[in-house]
Amino acid sequence: MPPAAPRSGEAIFSSVDRVNAKLFTLTYGAIVRQLLNDLEEVEEVNKQLDQMGYNIGIRMIDEFLAKSNVSRCIDFKETAEMIVNVGFKMFLGVTASVTKWDADGSCCSIVLEENPLVDFVELLDTCQGLYYCNILSGVIRGALEMVVMKTEVTWLRDMLRGDDAYELQVKLLSQLPEEYPYKDDE
Amino acid sequence: MPPAAPRSGEAIFSSVDRVNAKLFTLTYGAIVRQLLNDLEEVEEVNKQLDQMGYNIGIRMIDEFLAKSNVSRCIDFKETAEMIVNVGFKMFLGVTASVTKWDADGSCCSIVLEENPLVDFVELLDTCQGLYYCNILSGVIRGALEMVVMKTEVTWLRDMLRGDDAYELQVKLLSQLPEEYPYKDDE
Repeated sequence: MPPAAPRSGEAIFSSVDRVNAKLFTLTYGAIVRQLLNDLEEVEEVNKQLDQMGYNIGIRMIDEFLAKSNVSRCIDFKETAEMIVNVGFKMFLGVTASVTKWDADGSCCSIVLEENPLVDFVELLDTCQGLYYCNILSGVIRGALEMVVMKTEVTWLRDMLRGDDAYELQVKLLSQLPEEYPYKDDE
Repeated sequence: MPPAAPRSGEAIFSSVDRVNAKLFTLTYGAIVRQLLNDLEEVEEVNKQLDQMGYNIGIRMIDEFLAKSNVSRCIDFKETAEMIVNVGFKMFLGVTASVTKWDADGSCCSIVLEENPLVDFVELLDTCQGLYYCNILSGVIRGALEMVVMKTEVTWLRDMLRGDDAYELQVKLLSQLPEEYPYKDDE
């Protein structure tokens, strides 16, 4: 039997258990606030958010593979498209797009059209330097590492810092040999 | 014009923006893990989770009032029923029930039938004493305080500790005069 076709992010999103996005936004806000209280440096908060995201990402990939029927992405380009077209929709319920591919297909930008993390958020002057949504970069980095792609993920634009969009640059650093990635035949 | 009838939690839940419950579960897990790393005492983690929940609760009440058309609850009993029948459904998408009312209607139990915070969670031996879901008690306490009910919220049963359900006791400590609560006529 041929493998099932990948399911759309939309279809998955509408079939999984969900919680109120406002609750998620408030919970995320409480985390950031907590870290700002507990840690002295904003830079340290950015690191912790990224690390938390990484821990989430390495777990989310299982859910992604289980629900999406995506069994294997040929290359980084295809993988990035999957993250954006299926991943963002199935987890956050939002639409995003991939742009700015470099010539050898190892670096691109993910642009978010909506961002449920930041509803009603305004940064105080004391939070200069904070990447409020840094958990997202960690999630992407963690999830990709589980499919053996080491990446560097950085914010290029951040509306909380006055930019006109949320844009993450994802750069492929290395791709490990293919032995380990998916558990198709177990 | 008479005020609109309160909307059901189910109706509200299906009309608001939502995110994947798994993402919420993982994000919450990352918070708890972070706090366990950063703080030395499990008791301190319980306190912080409760405090984070409190901060969420005092903000969630606005969303609750705005979306539910609930304008005023006569007494603690009615309020508790609203939390359970409307609040839990509209935020977490789950069903809960109120039981064990004491004689004067100032103390009851909330029993959760489902709990999206704990999917796939197992407590390590090193986490003895942790109330993993303590954010929930804080949310309830915070939300009630905004409608001028000071309460004490404690866990009576916790499945992560081997009990057969999740049960929160909510005890009314004091109810402030009614001047402030709702912003109906502003």
